[in-house]
Amino acid sequence: MKLIQKRSRKTGLPPGTLVHIGEKRPAKVTITVFNYAGTRCDERQDLSFEELAPPTDESVTWVDVGGVHRLDILESFGKQFQLHPLLLEDIANTDQRPKLDDYESRLFLVMKMLSVSDRQEIVVEQVSLVFGPNFVLSFQENGADVFTSVRDRLRGGKGRLRQSGADYLLYTLVDAIVDQYFEVLEALSEKIEALQDLVVSNPKPETLHKIHDLKRQLLFLRRAVWPLREATNNLSRSECPFLQESIKVFFRDVYDHVVQIVDTIETLREMVSASLDIYLSSISYRLNAVMKVLTIITTIFMPLTFIVGVYGMNFEHMPELKWEWGYPLVLGLMVMIVIAMLGFFKGKKWI
Amino acid sequence: MKLIQKRSRKTGLPPGTLVHIGEKRPAKVTITVFNYAGTRCDERQDLSFEELAPPTDESVTWVDVGGVHRLDILESFGKQFQLHPLLLEDIANTDQRPKLDDYESRLFLVMKMLSVSDRQEIVVEQVSLVFGPNFVLSFQENGADVFTSVRDRLRGGKGRLRQSGADYLLYTLVDAIVDQYFEVLEALSEKIEALQDLVVSNPKPETLHKIHDLKRQLLFLRRAVWPLREATNNLSRSECPFLQESIKVFFRDVYDHVVQIVDTIETLREMVSASLDIYLSSISYRLNAVMKVLTIITTIFMPLTFIVGVYGMNFEHMPELKWEWGYPLVLGLMVMIVIAMLGFFKGKKWI
Amino acid sequence: MKLIQKRSRKTGLPPGTLVHIGEKRPAKVTITVFNYAGTRCDERQDLSFEELAPPTDESVTWVDVGGVHRLDILESFGKQFQLHPLLLEDIANTDQRPKLDDYESRLFLVMKMLSVSDRQEIVVEQVSLVFGPNFVLSFQENGADVFTSVRDRLRGGKGRLRQSGADYLLYTLVDAIVDQYFEVLEALSEKIEALQDLVVSNPKPETLHKIHDLKRQLLFLRRAVWPLREATNNLSRSECPFLQESIKVFFRDVYDHVVQIVDTIETLREMVSASLDIYLSSISYRLNAVMKVLTIITTIFMPLTFIVGVYGMNFEHMPELKWEWGYPLVLGLMVMIVIAMLGFFKGKKWI
Amino acid sequence: MKLIQKRSRKTGLPPGTLVHIGEKRPAKVTITVFNYAGTRCDERQDLSFEELAPPTDESVTWVDVGGVHRLDILESFGKQFQLHPLLLEDIANTDQRPKLDDYESRLFLVMKMLSVSDRQEIVVEQVSLVFGPNFVLSFQENGADVFTSVRDRLRGGKGRLRQSGADYLLYTLVDAIVDQYFEVLEALSEKIEALQDLVVSNPKPETLHKIHDLKRQLLFLRRAVWPLREATNNLSRSECPFLQESIKVFFRDVYDHVVQIVDTIETLREMVSASLDIYLSSISYRLNAVMKVLTIITTIFMPLTFIVGVYGMNFEHMPELKWEWGYPLVLGLMVMIVIAMLGFFKGKKWI
Amino acid sequence: MKLIQKRSRKTGLPPGTLVHIGEKRPAKVTITVFNYAGTRCDERQDLSFEELAPPTDESVTWVDVGGVHRLDILESFGKQFQLHPLLLEDIANTDQRPKLDDYESRLFLVMKMLSVSDRQEIVVEQVSLVFGPNFVLSFQENGADVFTSVRDRLRGGKGRLRQSGADYLLYTLVDAIVDQYFEVLEALSEKIEALQDLVVSNPKPETLHKIHDLKRQLLFLRRAVWPLREATNNLSRSECPFLQESIKVFFRDVYDHVVQIVDTIETLREMVSASLDIYLSSISYRLNAVMKVLTIITTIFMPLTFIVGVYGMNFEHMPELKWEWGYPLVLGLMVMIVIAMLGFFKGKKWI
Repeated sequence: MKLIQKRSRKTGLPPGTLVHIGEKRPAKVTITVFNYAGTRCDERQDLSFEELAPPTDESVTWVDVGGVHRLDILESFGKQFQLHPLLLEDIANTDQRPKLDDYESRLFLVMKMLSVSDRQEIVVEQVSLVFGPNFVLSFQENGADVFTSVRDRLRGGKGRLRQSGADYLLYTLVDAIVDQYFEVLEALSEKIEALQDLVVSNPKPETLHKIHDLKRQLLFLRRAVWPLREATNNLSRSECPFLQESIKVFFRDVYDHVVQIVDTIETLREMVSASLDIYLSSISYRLNAVMKVLTIITTIFMPLTFIVGVYGMNFEHMPELKWEWGYPLVLGLMVMIVIAMLGFFKGKKWI
Repeated sequence: MKLIQKRSRKTGLPPGTLVHIGEKRPAKVTITVFNYAGTRCDERQDLSFEELAPPTDESVTWVDVGGVHRLDILESFGKQFQLHPLLLEDIANTDQRPKLDDYESRLFLVMKMLSVSDRQEIVVEQVSLVFGPNFVLSFQENGADVFTSVRDRLRGGKGRLRQSGADYLLYTLVDAIVDQYFEVLEALSEKIEALQDLVVSNPKPETLHKIHDLKRQLLFLRRAVWPLREATNNLSRSECPFLQESIKVFFRDVYDHVVQIVDTIETLREMVSASLDIYLSSISYRLNAVMKVLTIITTIFMPLTFIVGVYGMNFEHMPELKWEWGYPLVLGLMVMIVIAMLGFFKGKKWI
Repeated sequence: MKLIQKRSRKTGLPPGTLVHIGEKRPAKVTITVFNYAGTRCDERQDLSFEELAPPTDESVTWVDVGGVHRLDILESFGKQFQLHPLLLEDIANTDQRPKLDDYESRLFLVMKMLSVSDRQEIVVEQVSLVFGPNFVLSFQENGADVFTSVRDRLRGGKGRLRQSGADYLLYTLVDAIVDQYFEVLEALSEKIEALQDLVVSNPKPETLHKIHDLKRQLLFLRRAVWPLREATNNLSRSECPFLQESIKVFFRDVYDHVVQIVDTIETLREMVSASLDIYLSSISYRLNAVMKVLTIITTIFMPLTFIVGVYGMNFEHMPELKWEWGYPLVLGLMVMIVIAMLGFFKGKKWI
Repeated sequence: MKLIQKRSRKTGLPPGTLVHIGEKRPAKVTITVFNYAGTRCDERQDLSFEELAPPTDESVTWVDVGGVHRLDILESFGKQFQLHPLLLEDIANTDQRPKLDDYESRLFLVMKMLSVSDRQEIVVEQVSLVFGPNFVLSFQENGADVFTSVRDRLRGGKGRLRQSGADYLLYTLVDAIVDQYFEVLEALSEKIEALQDLVVSNPKPETLHKIHDLKRQLLFLRRAVWPLREATNNLSRSECPFLQESIKVFFRDVYDHVVQIVDTIETLREMVSASLDIYLSSISYRLNAVMKVLTIITTIFMPLTFIVGVYGMNFEHMPELKWEWGYPLVLGLMVMIVIAMLGFFKGKKWI
Repeated sequence: MKLIQKRSRKTGLPPGTLVHIGEKRPAKVTITVFNYAGTRCDERQDLSFEELAPPTDESVTWVDVGGVHRLDILESFGKQFQLHPLLLEDIANTDQRPKLDDYESRLFLVMKMLSVSDRQEIVVEQVSLVFGPNFVLSFQENGADVFTSVRDRLRGGKGRLRQSGADYLLYTLVDAIVDQYFEVLEALSEKIEALQDLVVSNPKPETLHKIHDLKRQLLFLRRAVWPLREATNNLSRSECPFLQESIKVFFRDVYDHVVQIVDTIETLREMVSASLDIYLSSISYRLNAVMKVLTIITTIFMPLTFIVGVYGMNFEHMPELKWEWGYPLVLGLMVMIVIAMLGFFKGKKWI
């Protein structure tokens, strides 16, 4: 969850030079090709690049690529599918802001795929989707599972997926990624609810760290989702000729989801800020409580100590010292002082 | 009043799959049908689905459904009234953001119905309104009472409701929901006024919790109302052919109400924030007061204790101890010190 | 200056039902009618409703109504001047947001009339202005004096008022209300300047209350003025056929005034916020000062008290006690300690 | 540098009534007329009002008026140059927001002229510029020096000023005023840099006052400059027929300057806010330091004082008192306690 | 990294007068000219001004000027390349806001070149780019290295640079500058991460200074980058005839980078603000800890000291003093008090 990826290795290179920016993932690049049309659905892996070409008939092709660090592979894709050099550059650079670019005959959508790891941390992966007349290319940093359900539906042939065009496939993929966001939000919101209890019962510096960690994660999330708002909105209004009108209503639905997610992130942010306020107020209040104890103790015992000090003086001429009832009288005086003090504190509502 | 509802059971399902998201309400789904035209008004319950169809004559039909967790029922509605799958999906998902969607021949409006429970908590329920040429479908999570007055007016035949078309019925329902918001605001604003007195007279951690609880409720309210602004504005400018011009002025009036509610929510939010400021200032001020007492006591008694300590020393050669007037002189000295101290504090305006 | 008026009695009633919302003012409703054209100006009161009708000739009629709680009277107006039911509803509801509504042949402007009461509080009253081809209706909650100068000018016939149409009259009334705002701002700004001195010289909880009272009043003011910005702007660009081009430049001037008022309110708000900052800083600083006194006293007297305690011990074998110069030596030691301490505090810039 | 000028004397007067709002400046009103065309430039003062008329030939006339409190003079101008009554009213009212008004054949621009007085305070003066076909009228509150350089250039005939039309003269005047703003910003920014050092080295209440004084001045500045952004932008896009295309590029340059000034003001505001943060943090940190000293002293001496108190008790049966090494043993014990305490504080990094 | 450069020397001069504003750099002005077309690339220095002219054939000319303080040189450029006087003025004034100006036949782009110095400070230099039909002029404050890679590519002839027109050269230069920003961001973000650790482990005033120094640098950065957003956006939509459609897609890519940089700056700003919050909370928490120690010590020893004081009194009639077990009993009482106190603090979770 680093804020900024090392881009410096790119400085000074001509624009359009392919450079992989991001964590070097060890896995081999996997390429899975689905080609389907109505009743039929072929799934193949390990194709030669010659076989990898936009379909020429009515069928729909989905090429799912896991791994973007092999620049030679990206270049081969560029040639076979006529992709703009800047588009390829953006696929290789995993530090992209989500966006929708329109390269005339290709729509290019960059998104962030979020998931919660076993250690309860948010994991981010960049997904690039390229949409052409009857194909969709999807590039993931490594072959994660978010599209599993889509693959299953394609294989099973249930739903309208196989009957529909590449635009519906694009929507299905985008929808799968956005649906995942809700899970991340649920995880975060549970953490925040837990935090709000903790902040009151036990305000410690570790609590403060948890608050700031959540704040940071929400900042991070917002950066990943916020720009998607505009991107999905543009998609639902796109004038791209391969996007049918009847599909745009689905993208508007995705847009609604993204707006709701952005909304929820803002609400969670306000709740985290409120937690910080409560934390600080609790600290203040406790300081007050501590100070009251200190003041009460001091205020009660200081006069008493003074009085016993007086009768500890060694003057020769101190008549009280010789009185038979001197000691009990002084003890009584001190009891009265304590009672008066307690009354005073009671009046001030300190005890 | 949960921020986020469990949506995760939806992840991985094909889009358009009907899944109920929200609290499972135990009640049986109730369906009430009103069919009216001018002088006539039929009210029926427990119809077969074949009878449930858009009216073919000039009459207006209002189908009021209580309960959205029975997906089979929703699907039947979808068939009978030609509703888009995404529209049905949004009805079943009670975690929607308020919005207006235009599915060509159907207007779809999602709203939040708010009410104050007996335990003074805000209760939220989602209401989905579907508006077609001469019918309105309303889906509530359970059959709450907010539409009671509308039903009574239909039955009684008073006002222009029966004489008007389905668009006026839609307005009447929306207006009934929005009017309810004012009651919630009144309840909240009374709580806030009470809080502002409390915060000054007795700033305790519980007060802080009340502040944050109100803040949270207002956050919640804003989420429910804010998007309605755009929705009602769009409604008043809608180009939907079934919405007559003369009715749009009524929706503009609803829009005005929503704007005023949003406005008031913002004002209440600022007042709650101000309460937090006062709370913190009060704590600070009290700390100051406590510290002054501590300092005054310490500053007066420390020198006195020192003096009596001096004459408690056991040196053999301490001439003062033998003086006849030693003791009274020391007492007098101490009284003078106390007077000087009190003067000093007076000068500093501490007492 | 209540934030929210009781609206709940309206819930459940059919829309367009006239309900008075607001303080029930005891006074009888007063109706004053001015009818003028160039040299002539008739002023009448206590007309029958039949006489109250839009003028049919070129003359201009201004009907000034004081009191909106008599719903029967409002309904009569509605009939005589063809006012839309929603318009009447808004007149009766004194909890309106300022706005400009365009009911085809009637412009409807709601404003807040502000004044400073003798007890230096802001008093708010709603004024509704209805503008038709050659008449203006003004509805006030009670007959306050803000239009006195307009009446005098009508009676005296000075200025261009009598020579101009109803649109100029409308402008004159709006201008009179807006001019009043400047007086309220002046009163507030004087209070704020006074506060800023107080906050430094004597930061007490009462000062804090004054700050928050001012904050609240400004919040209130902003709610009353902010929406007027849009309303007057729309007025100056209105395409209403009864508004002459040459008059619109006057409304633009009013718009400029409103913008300036909004601007000033924002500035005053920032100044009040700054006062709160100063208040809190002053409290902090004073705490610091108090703590320094406490620490200095403690640090000086604790070691001294310890030393005298040492020589107050009753050990049989304490050679110092028998020295002839023991006592003066100890006294000298203590003077040196005090001097050293004072030097230390001087070095820390505490004294 | 008052926030609000007394406007109340205007309330109740008919709109368009000329009333001077602002400080009554004692000086006589000065009127200087420049009339030039290419090689020629006449400068005259003390003209009769008949002579003061828009030029009828190709020459350009600049009338510079110092003093706007003589309403009769303003009215004469109004007649001679066909100025709208509202325009005259705005000239007389020196509490205007900067703005550009377009009265068909006259452009009216209100600006604030800022300068730094000898006592390092910001002095504001309102300048009203009226631009007609071949004349410019400038109204200042008193004849300040900001236009001196323009006058010199006119007299000397250097640059393109004399060769150009009235639109270029207008630009020259506006540019002279805006250039002055940079000087004010420089003065303020130097003060702020000085403050930032002070706030760390010596956080005193006076520092706080300086911070708030700067905040107030920046608030003031923003009010004067912010609306100018829109005004100059409108000027550079104006469709006024007397403004040549080639001159508009110069107004765009002025607009760029204004944007930069607004930008800088915002940055300075953030820096002043940061100063306040540092001030508060410094106070907090110092409180911490003071408390540590107090706690260290108390923690060391309290146990010691207790121990010597123990051996100051007068019990008959206290064997230690009779030991020959009792006194040295107790002294040794106390030294060990001090050493232990110092180690404890060292461990807590307090010393 | 000064906020405001001395501009005052410009006040009072006619607009369009060339004045150098900025640090006077000692270096001689260097002028390097590249002229290339396809396979050919000539590089020359020290040309006479007669030779410096826009190319008349199809070749592309890039004139790179290091140093803008020699106004005579700028004027010569102005004549040879037909540059508007305001454009020249803006080149000489290094205190410009980034912007894109369109002087009909010349596009003028002002940018800030940022780099991190050896002492880890951000260094800013203004770069002005003038773009004409087939030439680009670049003006730097001194000949820094950011364009080195561009020069090398021109000399080497690799990539499409030599084959393309002046618009692609313009893009290459802008891209080189923007790429550098990422390096600056990386440096800053590393500092911020380091700070966040420091703020928790050791909150000292120096940490506060570091926070504010970073805040200031980010403020500075934002000022340099923010306006570039609009400038690059305008560039990618420019209707300038020399900018080919196919090149605009590259400028859109630059725009995307700028948006991402602005985004990152905002995120970093929030992180720095969070650091300040943590700093203040840590100080508060430590104060609390210190106060607890003080209170515990005081609360334990004050009663003990009082008790030993009681038995240090010199009354003749104090029976306890004569008891044989008096001393051990008192010691036992005191041990019990200590145990009770520790239990009390344990209950309050203070220890």
